[in-house]
Amino acid sequence: MICQETITLRTKGRGTFEFSAEVERIISNSGIKKGLCNVFIQHTSASLILCENADPAVRKDLEAFMSHMVPDGDPLFRHTTEGPDDMPAHVRSVLTGSSLLVPVSNCCCALGTWQGIYLWEHRHAPHERHIVVTIYGD
Amino acid sequence: MICQETITLRTKGRGTFEFSAEVERIISNSGIKKGLCNVFIQHTSASLILCENADPAVRKDLEAFMSHMVPDGDPLFRHTTEGPDDMPAHVRSVLTGSSLLVPVSNCCCALGTWQGIYLWEHRHAPHERHIVVTIYGD
Amino acid sequence: MICQETITLRTKGRGTFEFSAEVERIISNSGIKKGLCNVFIQHTSASLILCENADPAVRKDLEAFMSHMVPDGDPLFRHTTEGPDDMPAHVRSVLTGSSLLVPVSNCCCALGTWQGIYLWEHRHAPHERHIVVTIYGD
Repeated sequence: MICQETITLRTKGRGTFEFSAEVERIISNSGIKKGLCNVFIQHTSASLILCENADPAVRKDLEAFMSHMVPDGDPLFRHTTEGPDDMPAHVRSVLTGSSLLVPVSNCCCALGTWQGIYLWEHRHAPHERHIVVTIYGD
Repeated sequence: MICQETITLRTKGRGTFEFSAEVERIISNSGIKKGLCNVFIQHTSASLILCENADPAVRKDLEAFMSHMVPDGDPLFRHTTEGPDDMPAHVRSVLTGSSLLVPVSNCCCALGTWQGIYLWEHRHAPHERHIVVTIYGD
Repeated sequence: MICQETITLRTKGRGTFEFSAEVERIISNSGIKKGLCNVFIQHTSASLILCENADPAVRKDLEAFMSHMVPDGDPLFRHTTEGPDDMPAHVRSVLTGSSLLVPVSNCCCALGTWQGIYLWEHRHAPHERHIVVTIYGD
């Protein structure tokens, strides 16, 4: 059995947004008990990550680390016509990835206790981000 | 056909641990000849990587590089109550990933000659890590 | 339904090479309408990424960034017998990944408008790289 649904998330600019519940809802609606769930973002300046979802400081620290590692306006970059955060957004996306694959067990996402599914917006401006969720299993 | 099994690996603290043989065993037991194998870790301070498995110096160098890139006790971090290696462990996990997908061909993991499947423990203390292996195919 | 094909790409040394059209051709030949497509590289010194495919400056900047972050000949590295770019190639591969998973919708790769599938060669010398493409779906 296969189930595929595209969802649109509106971000508020750079930062991480949890949408584990949205993925759980799609898995639940699919009726699939055991299998795999792929979450895929159709953009190159936002990414998808699994991250600790208990203490919000973790995502703040993660953002601080990434902003320091891939600084906006780095003179190294030539692709600058769309702003000083555009090329860093592409680099951050390549380093963190566009696609997640999570097992489905007992009709649920088999995440660990502290794992959440996050959209990481890398642009400073709010964006509409399209995400394809595909579930495969029995 | 789908097969899913959870295994537990006990780490000895920070470092990389190969468990390709364990994944091969699960694939072999599943009877699946051609398909895909997902390996997923249910934690946010350890990750899964594919890495060169011939020269042990490669994993030492990888660890040295990562320790330098994401230093323990970085004053940038505020999430520090669980120790100076906790927030770095979350960052390292996000950068290296929680999920691997490897093709299955002729009843085996279709890894390259020098590729091994590794659990990368990012905490200094030993931990029990739960890993879900899901195999899909014919 | 499952379809698996191995392709070989010959690189010209360090740099990014788009092969989205090759993946599209395999999906089209498979006859699969809806599902998932895995692209897997059987090497530890080249990787697979999704990246912006409109402005070539993006890949140049990405390469410049990575060369700066993981410098060739870094004195940190001991695994140096195969040259100053070998260990950096392993690090770059771990950071960017060996495996992509992309949804298939309406018989096509459901990539975003600006997403392309790239092989990133991390060695300076040209190499033959083997890539396994597995498509699963209806």
